[in-house]
Amino acid sequence: MEVKREEKLQEAVSDILKSYEERGELSHLEGGTLPNRETIWGIVEDLLKLLFPGFLEGTMIPRDDIAARTSERVSSLERRLKGEIEKGLRFKKEPDAGVQERSRKARAIALKLLAEIPAIRELLAADIGAAYEGDPAARSDEEIILAYPGLQAIAVHRMAHVLYVEDVPLVPRVMTEYAHARTGIDIHPGAQIGRRFFIDHGTGVVIGETTQIGKRVRIYQGVTLGALSLPWGAGELLRDKKRHPTIEEDVIIYSGATILGGDTVIGARSVIGGNVWVTESVPPDTKVFLKKPELVYRGGS
Amino acid sequence: MEVKREEKLQEAVSDILKSYEERGELSHLEGGTLPNRETIWGIVEDLLKLLFPGFLEGTMIPRDDIAARTSERVSSLERRLKGEIEKGLRFKKEPDAGVQERSRKARAIALKLLAEIPAIRELLAADIGAAYEGDPAARSDEEIILAYPGLQAIAVHRMAHVLYVEDVPLVPRVMTEYAHARTGIDIHPGAQIGRRFFIDHGTGVVIGETTQIGKRVRIYQGVTLGALSLPWGAGELLRDKKRHPTIEEDVIIYSGATILGGDTVIGARSVIGGNVWVTESVPPDTKVFLKKPELVYRGGS
Amino acid sequence: MEVKREEKLQEAVSDILKSYEERGELSHLEGGTLPNRETIWGIVEDLLKLLFPGFLEGTMIPRDDIAARTSERVSSLERRLKGEIEKGLRFKKEPDAGVQERSRKARAIALKLLAEIPAIRELLAADIGAAYEGDPAARSDEEIILAYPGLQAIAVHRMAHVLYVEDVPLVPRVMTEYAHARTGIDIHPGAQIGRRFFIDHGTGVVIGETTQIGKRVRIYQGVTLGALSLPWGAGELLRDKKRHPTIEEDVIIYSGATILGGDTVIGARSVIGGNVWVTESVPPDTKVFLKKPELVYRGGS
Repeated sequence: MEVKREEKLQEAVSDILKSYEERGELSHLEGGTLPNRETIWGIVEDLLKLLFPGFLEGTMIPRDDIAARTSERVSSLERRLKGEIEKGLRFKKEPDAGVQERSRKARAIALKLLAEIPAIRELLAADIGAAYEGDPAARSDEEIILAYPGLQAIAVHRMAHVLYVEDVPLVPRVMTEYAHARTGIDIHPGAQIGRRFFIDHGTGVVIGETTQIGKRVRIYQGVTLGALSLPWGAGELLRDKKRHPTIEEDVIIYSGATILGGDTVIGARSVIGGNVWVTESVPPDTKVFLKKPELVYRGGS
Repeated sequence: MEVKREEKLQEAVSDILKSYEERGELSHLEGGTLPNRETIWGIVEDLLKLLFPGFLEGTMIPRDDIAARTSERVSSLERRLKGEIEKGLRFKKEPDAGVQERSRKARAIALKLLAEIPAIRELLAADIGAAYEGDPAARSDEEIILAYPGLQAIAVHRMAHVLYVEDVPLVPRVMTEYAHARTGIDIHPGAQIGRRFFIDHGTGVVIGETTQIGKRVRIYQGVTLGALSLPWGAGELLRDKKRHPTIEEDVIIYSGATILGGDTVIGARSVIGGNVWVTESVPPDTKVFLKKPELVYRGGS
Repeated sequence: MEVKREEKLQEAVSDILKSYEERGELSHLEGGTLPNRETIWGIVEDLLKLLFPGFLEGTMIPRDDIAARTSERVSSLERRLKGEIEKGLRFKKEPDAGVQERSRKARAIALKLLAEIPAIRELLAADIGAAYEGDPAARSDEEIILAYPGLQAIAVHRMAHVLYVEDVPLVPRVMTEYAHARTGIDIHPGAQIGRRFFIDHGTGVVIGETTQIGKRVRIYQGVTLGALSLPWGAGELLRDKKRHPTIEEDVIIYSGATILGGDTVIGARSVIGGNVWVTESVPPDTKVFLKKPELVYRGGS
């Protein structure tokens, strides 16, 4: 019995090892370590602490310690970010000249993200203001920072976007998946998003790679800013094209609305009603609602 | 090179420290420790173990040990709950008189929640009955407790609601975000929810702060019980008003339906069909469905 | 004061203990240890590492080590899987003869799942190909494995389904909840899903227990493949009946579409448009879209 078990285990192992050779694309056994999801998610958590000091720690940071604490954090983040970015850069279509050049570049990009932190905090302060103004259930800035998934998603996006612009493969996408897994909000790191952005509730929101969003835009749960349908195999042709909509400033998009297509522009100050499906541009200052649907009311017995 | 790196790091740190001063609302560096998300989420996990003993531990609790184990759990939870509630109470608009009064009050509220556990278990037993009756895929009570996200969300809500009623800032909202992050079900701790409540699947469900739900209500994934739209800046006026609907007893609401507005009442025993968008009251014993939409069928080549 | 606290704590404990007796169905205090969620989720994480070696570890696996590493992993997984499956088998309606028989059966099922790993890798290679082809934002296979929630959900499903077919209670359902909690994609382990399956974005997707899906099917976020409505109490009658739709090969289903009913068949090569609600069969080679809804456009002030 025990012998039979050993045999079966051995057989399973040898079949799995054979499969590792035959299906090489599912086995990353050469070509250098890949960016690591756990490591990147840990970096994201520390970046959030750097963005909002005192909000995510268990105890108060004494004012005397804040300089030393920040210095340590920045230094640790630089080292870890550099490591993951360096691993990511190996996956560029046209890889950099050599190991040293890649190392240098990875360090420069890590430092760039850290140098952007104050500017990102400026943007997030405006986002928090928009959340407070937009949601009557919000009681304080503290509540928004501690408990609003939309803020978490936009904070991670604004950082991941810096790496996307620097053309780092894999790492920014793994960063935004941190937020997607926790909030149900799926913002591609390529999306360009203006100041004072507010996502309420947020579960089910999808914002595609080439979306452009102006200032003071507010969206609700289940909103998709996506690409038009495409037949099997057309993917390759559309890579790197603008496939997702443009949302101008001061637009509000209610829950479950879907806006598709790279040429679709929602004009400034327009309002898109709940569940509306839009694949064409909407002029500025327009309200678009579903015609009140005919509901069938059937009385009881 | 190494020198340049040090310089750049130092520059980043000093810019970040400057930003901490300038954007004080994003830097919690004074005024006492905030309620901590990790701590509160750990408390929620232990509260769930207290609610469902034997279900979430890795090994059997010997019957001889259950009294001692429960006593330890309750004592530890009281201490930790008291700590977080006390931190929360600092954020009341009209804070309590002093440190001692706040400490006393925090302890009383922690004890109140623990004293409510048997009553909450009564409610959850009824919720589990409703899940078993409502979902043909359910095989046993054990499966519902171990694997139904809707039950997890309602269990956390019923506990967070106790703290909401006691007017504790921040803590109840962070508690329900534990469930939101894990289940995609976003129930505000203020919502009032009756016995035998069942949410199936649940991803994308939103239940707003002033919602009232009667007995034996069943809802599906993607249902929103929300507020009517509001223009920028109207948030302040609506704070503390009833903004979300009332759902009377024995109502069923199918997936993707949206019911909005504080004056909207769905009458007892009514059925709201999938994807229906309702902003007006519905009488009792009514079935509301979308008129069968005109579908465009286009044959193949 | 301190005395009063002790008294109140003691009272809470004794009321909770009483509730444990009275509400026995919420207290698992006898009948053997239940399958444990944490343990099963840890197993799922290790199974994913076994499926995709080198993708989820923090460092490169040296080629020399891969055989030893795999052997260790398989052996550890066999032991842990066997333990959880054995606990699950206690919950069968007609339990196996005795402890030894259950132990033997649990081991055989654990070995079966491990023996299926190469075949599951074959299926996942095809799923990855479908994702790359179907999503212009995908840059590489590595990105899909590291960052696509749809792939994670289908990988977990394909493993859980093996245990479902072997009629193991509880464990497969807890496995798919691992994916549901992380991705918002709720696939019941009973669903039968063909090759080259791709779910894009995925939050809010629900695929019911008796769904059948053919080859090369693509679905988007918010799609429900569900059961028709049922009145309270009808659950028991429908258990073990086919309640969910059949999707034939090469079908595409866009975001937010809902397809319900056990007799509903979506014919091969058909396309179901966004937000469409289907409760009747659709012939092959058909495109079904919502009639362009009448939108109400209201200009600005």
